Amino acid sequence: MDSERRSENGVLPLSDVTVVDLTQVVAGPFATMGLGDLGAEVIKIEAVGRGDRSRSIQPKPAYFDTVNRNKYSVAIDLKSDAGREAARRLVADADVFIESTKPGRAAAFGLDYDAVAELNPGIIYCSISGFGRNSPYEDLPAWDMLIQGMSGIMSITGEEGGEPLWSGLPSGDLIAGSYASQSVLAALYARERGDIDGEWIEVPMFDAAVTWLTARAGYTFGYGEPFPRLGTHHPSIVPFGKYDCSDSSIVIAAGTPDFWRGFCRALDRPDLLEDGRFATMDDRVRNRGELDDVIEPVLKSRPSDYWIDRLHEEGVPAGPIYDTRTVWEDEHVKRRGLHQVMEREDREDADVIDQPVHFAELDTRLEIAPQRLGESTDAVLRRHGYSADELARLREAGVIE
Amino acid sequence: MDSERRSENGVLPLSDVTVVDLTQVVAGPFATMGLGDLGAEVIKIEAVGRGDRSRSIQPKPAYFDTVNRNKYSVAIDLKSDAGREAARRLVADADVFIESTKPGRAAAFGLDYDAVAELNPGIIYCSISGFGRNSPYEDLPAWDMLIQGMSGIMSITGEEGGEPLWSGLPSGDLIAGSYASQSVLAALYARERGDIDGEWIEVPMFDAAVTWLTARAGYTFGYGEPFPRLGTHHPSIVPFGKYDCSDSSIVIAAGTPDFWRGFCRALDRPDLLEDGRFATMDDRVRNRGELDDVIEPVLKSRPSDYWIDRLHEEGVPAGPIYDTRTVWEDEHVKRRGLHQVMEREDREDADVIDQPVHFAELDTRLEIAPQRLGESTDAVLRRHGYSADELARLREAGVIE
Repeated sequence: MDSERRSENGVLPLSDVTVVDLTQVVAGPFATMGLGDLGAEVIKIEAVGRGDRSRSIQPKPAYFDTVNRNKYSVAIDLKSDAGREAARRLVADADVFIESTKPGRAAAFGLDYDAVAELNPGIIYCSISGFGRNSPYEDLPAWDMLIQGMSGIMSITGEEGGEPLWSGLPSGDLIAGSYASQSVLAALYARERGDIDGEWIEVPMFDAAVTWLTARAGYTFGYGEPFPRLGTHHPSIVPFGKYDCSDSSIVIAAGTPDFWRGFCRALDRPDLLEDGRFATMDDRVRNRGELDDVIEPVLKSRPSDYWIDRLHEEGVPAGPIYDTRTVWEDEHVKRRGLHQVMEREDREDADVIDQPVHFAELDTRLEIAPQRLGESTDAVLRRHGYSADELARLREAGVIE
Repeated sequence: MDSERRSENGVLPLSDVTVVDLTQVVAGPFATMGLGDLGAEVIKIEAVGRGDRSRSIQPKPAYFDTVNRNKYSVAIDLKSDAGREAARRLVADADVFIESTKPGRAAAFGLDYDAVAELNPGIIYCSISGFGRNSPYEDLPAWDMLIQGMSGIMSITGEEGGEPLWSGLPSGDLIAGSYASQSVLAALYARERGDIDGEWIEVPMFDAAVTWLTARAGYTFGYGEPFPRLGTHHPSIVPFGKYDCSDSSIVIAAGTPDFWRGFCRALDRPDLLEDGRFATMDDRVRNRGELDDVIEPVLKSRPSDYWIDRLHEEGVPAGPIYDTRTVWEDEHVKRRGLHQVMEREDREDADVIDQPVHFAELDTRLEIAPQRLGESTDAVLRRHGYSADELARLREAGVIE
């Protein structure tokens, strides 16, 4: 927890903010985890008995743990009148409510925007959904893979001449989660300035993913053609991409004349600088095959560590291709303390990835380890006016857990 | 500009915020574009003669245009004393300064954090870099592909049994850009509340990308093994992934018992529901090959439109695989007005992708079309105290453009 970069006596920017979180799986939980890291009190409402659906996704509980630290788990049966009343008390006192329930579900729980705003006119209410209201797909359940397919992300991922592939990241979920936290922060700022009383925000996953096409869409806007799948090549930079060394593969991005000169020095092949076939970037792109024939055997003759050191000495962007196990052994990643272990008294500790951003004055935190289902039900509901007797009765009736 | 979803008389949340932007290519520009969409005045400082490096990336100017609307382009030679003085005047009046220059470059321009904070103690100063200070890779230029390789994103993208691939999105850039805008918003909020005077934020691209591993890292935390490449399959859900129809491919995500029943109805194969080989999800995962042998010929017998309609009628998540050209023809995308054209008087109009988030009270905007290099140099510098004569002299001396 004491990674070198944490500022001393930092202020948590959202220490005065309470978030009620009715989301599950990845998109919503990623957003509310980020707000919790910034200091918000996050009250995660989960279904009695089952909890967040990702609690049952393997490997348990590691899958769930990666996006659910800094939250108080409160298990409530929202299908019961008494459960809905408990949820109403929580949102009545909150600054932010984030939900990702199916269309119509929030209203059935009495937690639609109008109902919540009547209880709490200052609420910032954020809905994350697949497509949002008034969409031809409004009722269609959104899965990350569907969003990747429909947004164009799959179409630009894959081998040259091959089939569309997923991005390995759950991009559809994480992009939506990022827009949700960003939008909530913008609304908190506007509310603090007195520009709004409360706010209702909709984040459609599909639309969010489409906006990330950015320069890939620019290719189509400029040329009229779909952006092609390129494997690990670059259409206009050589040498660039994945190269095999004697032990494993590395990535190299020699995208400037300086990098090209450094690359030739690193390979101890200054003769390539005099070779007319490779004189300019245009030449190297045109004669990529011939250049690959020259450099591939050289790179394959030594291990990746050797080449990365040599390329770095010459200032050329190059690095290893880590997987989700080796990345944590990287010297930089270790120095930053990106992989942290949060202790839990009653069961195995939780592996988490810390926030990447460094603030000089403000701070982020890793404080509350991912909780068991309902671990904070009593503590949170008591703070919202329930007596021990009432809680015992609700528990007995299966309304809370 | 008048997409149906824009609120009427909305307040732009950042209408009182001025951002000075010394970033280029994708990561920084994506962040400052988002702040501009939320209403901030963004003053984009570019090098005289050359401008943002992405102005020369093909297709021109479409590549640049996709991440540079809502900014005033001011071309200044920061290698000259007079140019540095002009930049100092701009940051002295700003709320936010975002830069992504190489290590040491901002200091050479007199625009390092200490220098800027001395001019303007309230500044929120945000640096986007590959690795940040005190990294073993501090001096290494960061390219999106390098970040994808080192962060593990490449390792989890690719065909089953195949080689690591890029994600088609410039994920390394866009993730860092998202963290930058989110962190700046958190700091603006804290400053508005009086918790801080100013702030210094560092966003390292590598660290940012690593945090997006989330549940993919959870796989390793739980099993000790690297998350595998899976093509478009899912390790524990069947039917799931890409399926060929008679004309093109679609994605299907039948991840629940309800969806499985709907899937069988859509294919008019209720017999599969009685087939013991496919009774439970575990059965379907175990007998995936046999199930594929049954359903692939059925799906290939009709076009994708037919199957998508049928699957939607049965409530099964399914959809087309759009590319960066066909996505704009989707009925939802058209209804949302995600693809917008911003008019430019003096040259071809700019194609842009609008913000995905809907606010009820607040608003976002598409107001300033992507500008020519230096299009607002005079207008902005005059607002910061330069006379027409001074500007003429500076232009003649090559200090501004």
